[in-house]
Amino acid sequence: MIKTIMLKEQIKYDGSQLQPHWIYRNFGLLGDAVVAFIGEVQVNLDKMVDLTDVKEKEHIYSPLMLNFIAEHFNTDLELAIYRQRLLMVTIKEQLEQYEIAVKRVGDDLYVDRGKLSVSVATSSVVSTLIHIGLNIETEGTPLKTAGLRELGISDISAFATNVMLNYNRELERINEARCKVRGIPLEG
Amino acid sequence: MIKTIMLKEQIKYDGSQLQPHWIYRNFGLLGDAVVAFIGEVQVNLDKMVDLTDVKEKEHIYSPLMLNFIAEHFNTDLELAIYRQRLLMVTIKEQLEQYEIAVKRVGDDLYVDRGKLSVSVATSSVVSTLIHIGLNIETEGTPLKTAGLRELGISDISAFATNVMLNYNRELERINEARCKVRGIPLEG
Amino acid sequence: MIKTIMLKEQIKYDGSQLQPHWIYRNFGLLGDAVVAFIGEVQVNLDKMVDLTDVKEKEHIYSPLMLNFIAEHFNTDLELAIYRQRLLMVTIKEQLEQYEIAVKRVGDDLYVDRGKLSVSVATSSVVSTLIHIGLNIETEGTPLKTAGLRELGISDISAFATNVMLNYNRELERINEARCKVRGIPLEG
Amino acid sequence: MIKTIMLKEQIKYDGSQLQPHWIYRNFGLLGDAVVAFIGEVQVNLDKMVDLTDVKEKEHIYSPLMLNFIAEHFNTDLELAIYRQRLLMVTIKEQLEQYEIAVKRVGDDLYVDRGKLSVSVATSSVVSTLIHIGLNIETEGTPLKTAGLRELGISDISAFATNVMLNYNRELERINEARCKVRGIPLEG
Amino acid sequence: MIKTIMLKEQIKYDGSQLQPHWIYRNFGLLGDAVVAFIGEVQVNLDKMVDLTDVKEKEHIYSPLMLNFIAEHFNTDLELAIYRQRLLMVTIKEQLEQYEIAVKRVGDDLYVDRGKLSVSVATSSVVSTLIHIGLNIETEGTPLKTAGLRELGISDISAFATNVMLNYNRELERINEARCKVRGIPLEG
Amino acid sequence: MIKTIMLKEQIKYDGSQLQPHWIYRNFGLLGDAVVAFIGEVQVNLDKMVDLTDVKEKEHIYSPLMLNFIAEHFNTDLELAIYRQRLLMVTIKEQLEQYEIAVKRVGDDLYVDRGKLSVSVATSSVVSTLIHIGLNIETEGTPLKTAGLRELGISDISAFATNVMLNYNRELERINEARCKVRGIPLEG
Repeated sequence: MIKTIMLKEQIKYDGSQLQPHWIYRNFGLLGDAVVAFIGEVQVNLDKMVDLTDVKEKEHIYSPLMLNFIAEHFNTDLELAIYRQRLLMVTIKEQLEQYEIAVKRVGDDLYVDRGKLSVSVATSSVVSTLIHIGLNIETEGTPLKTAGLRELGISDISAFATNVMLNYNRELERINEARCKVRGIPLEG
Repeated sequence: MIKTIMLKEQIKYDGSQLQPHWIYRNFGLLGDAVVAFIGEVQVNLDKMVDLTDVKEKEHIYSPLMLNFIAEHFNTDLELAIYRQRLLMVTIKEQLEQYEIAVKRVGDDLYVDRGKLSVSVATSSVVSTLIHIGLNIETEGTPLKTAGLRELGISDISAFATNVMLNYNRELERINEARCKVRGIPLEG
Repeated sequence: MIKTIMLKEQIKYDGSQLQPHWIYRNFGLLGDAVVAFIGEVQVNLDKMVDLTDVKEKEHIYSPLMLNFIAEHFNTDLELAIYRQRLLMVTIKEQLEQYEIAVKRVGDDLYVDRGKLSVSVATSSVVSTLIHIGLNIETEGTPLKTAGLRELGISDISAFATNVMLNYNRELERINEARCKVRGIPLEG
Repeated sequence: MIKTIMLKEQIKYDGSQLQPHWIYRNFGLLGDAVVAFIGEVQVNLDKMVDLTDVKEKEHIYSPLMLNFIAEHFNTDLELAIYRQRLLMVTIKEQLEQYEIAVKRVGDDLYVDRGKLSVSVATSSVVSTLIHIGLNIETEGTPLKTAGLRELGISDISAFATNVMLNYNRELERINEARCKVRGIPLEG
Repeated sequence: MIKTIMLKEQIKYDGSQLQPHWIYRNFGLLGDAVVAFIGEVQVNLDKMVDLTDVKEKEHIYSPLMLNFIAEHFNTDLELAIYRQRLLMVTIKEQLEQYEIAVKRVGDDLYVDRGKLSVSVATSSVVSTLIHIGLNIETEGTPLKTAGLRELGISDISAFATNVMLNYNRELERINEARCKVRGIPLEG
Repeated sequence: MIKTIMLKEQIKYDGSQLQPHWIYRNFGLLGDAVVAFIGEVQVNLDKMVDLTDVKEKEHIYSPLMLNFIAEHFNTDLELAIYRQRLLMVTIKEQLEQYEIAVKRVGDDLYVDRGKLSVSVATSSVVSTLIHIGLNIETEGTPLKTAGLRELGISDISAFATNVMLNYNRELERINEARCKVRGIPLEG
């Protein structure tokens, strides 16, 4: 249903990757897709999408993150946010496979009150886009954070691949559910 | 954002409750709402909404369940299924507050491979409807099941109330997220 | 993208087949699908979907037709009619492979002023449905008609299979087109 | 239903015409509309909308084309692509009036394996836009092409006018079809 | 844009007229349309569409009303309610031409605290439907009411025709407005 | 349902305020909102949104206006225009409280043939936006105009606050209406 790829090369995420067709132009995946990659993350205020963060001048920095960029070719922002939530839940559930207890608040994940993630979902004229970053290392991050390394996730690529696989299955199940239920007649 | 109520009286759920305006007609909550109640659950094949279950002649029975009926006045079935998934996740996360490890597969919850839940989401001409049932007791259920009682949830009403409170917060956060993000300009 | 099947058994089409999940219940194809089958066609006024025909008391009869039933799990009737038109065009273009000149007027196909087809597209609470019937034999039809047999299409199954294959490709190309175009910026 | 105009003056098409309200600003047609005009076509890579062509550096050139620009004030890109396909089919069917055998593959038209057309459909914040160009002359085109002149279409304006007339009728028939069909009740 | 007709014959309105294609089947207007007619109005509880009225057992009765039935072939109930409000406003503004001061509260009109109108908007699988009834005479109505007769509207047909004319103009202006505005670029 | 604020400070309106999130960035109201403020209005042609005005080079000027900016986080322009119309009607009805007879034509208000208002509704990638300006003073306006001052509205803030209050109630009633009506079954 969606195409996925775990990139081998590191990419520094500065916000300019959250762009329509960035996945297609750079990696050739045409259609709904998720790309994962590792890299430093630094998003300055002028590239920040969450205006509450912009107001509070909370830029984003992490020395090394596992990043997911998802693009869905549908412009319904509300639906995109539901998808972002489910992708976040998929990550939480993957961490639970490693017996790591994770707390989710909206689109944020916490481990022992340390913030593990950053995320945003937004829309363009042709698609909606999601970014999720999970700290791998946490040195120099502006808040109390948690990182995948210290949580014992050593094979980041395998972890990311499983997340994308499960997200794909989740979307397929949703699509099947849509096709297999009877509608409900009007009340008498 | 949504109205919620935990009913005091027991109601036997037989599928006829999954009807547009059942909440409004019976409990007076006008608009998007969730109602929780305890009761025996028996849904015969002619009332089953999931056609895969109908094909496999898997009727639903549980001696006592905590039931949630949610109605959203929007007819987008795909969106309703996303909401059903998030309500399921909310239940899972509430169980985690009791240090109960829960596995979610689509819209099913499992504890130690025992099936805790039944659920379906569907649409009518005016709204979408969700039913979720969580076993309280499990005697006589057709499969290996888990029940809230044996998991140590003694105050079912408090549990249900927290689930509805958190679901409401989840939807509010989604709405806020929709209103606070910049759109993304077209690629250069 | 869509699932297709050419049925071996003959089925008499009387309008009751144009029903949500008829394909899934009977042939197990879950999701957007097209089914083709051969059979007599007789639709009485009370089962007719086109109200203009109902007003003019034009029931439908053909001794033997190649029938297509398509179901798309989306409730946008306008989109369904566009799809019906494209499925009709696909049939016309398949006939052109046999060097048969076909004239299309909306959702009707004509060969030498003989009416080859009947068709309708409609919606239910959960999906949209399309029926297309192409005369194989024409004895006893109420109008001047054309039939696939007299046009030299001997292998009806192969013909139907190609139509469904091409319709599937058409929909895939449309989906790809949606994902590969830049949006247009606002005028300066 | 839609407004149409065949322009008398030649216009060089370089991609900048595919812009919201270009038709209204220049020719005063307010609302859904199609404009046809003759002119040289040269679209450089930075103005190309199809990103597959951009990746493969396939710019567009034709010494003289019959161009159609259609604008529909609806932002559903998928619907726009269906409309583009139907406009393409309308052109093919108009050519068939001249006994010219045309092969359509998605949004491309071929005569004797010569490419007759270029086309794209895309969306802006307020509307969707379609461009179709049909070679009139073919000297200097980058591929094996076909042209209206060599196919014997001498009165290009009459040809274009008929295409727009038939496209308008097609859309009217679709609208009527939407209004005259009964919905389908839920399965029993 | 919409078709309208003022019927010459009286029709008793009992709620069964608020049905998809009632206008097309009975009066032959295909597409979005408004029909006006005069007649007694009696809607029993089982035909009432407004469930708040059903709960409060407020059936509808008027010895003679000017009735409008509007059908729009679009299934968005929210949009239908906006249209109902604008049709109500159109009636109020038409009354103002007769120097009658009218107070509107949602979809109710009052003159000197007498209720002039009943109204409801609802949806089916294929369309949305609006009913508005304006008292002509008021004898035997269950509440304090006002009637067109006592307000000095003697030519009911002319009044109704003007309302439908102005509603049509209103919808045309809305459509034009949609087509003539620039979209707004993203904030810098 | 919506958040509203009457600003104390004057703001010159030059069109740059009609921007997504202008309300949130400047006044902290997150979500659907209306802001009212007083100020000079001068919109030059390059900032004008209505292209008919742009074509006719009709810039906007008023020495002092009561301005409303509304933002709804939904991108359906047609719906936005219905909302603009209802906000206009709300203003008209508020003026009627002062026994001022107002004539509305689409989105324009007139008192004694003097134009009281300017207005436009448009869309961005994330929201729709409405501007309405009501003349307070009229010196130097390009047309025959009417102003709130000369109409006897001395407390502009109170007037604006009531308009926003009533608009909010209007939207709440529409939402309730959507949730309390039965759908209509298919015709037999």
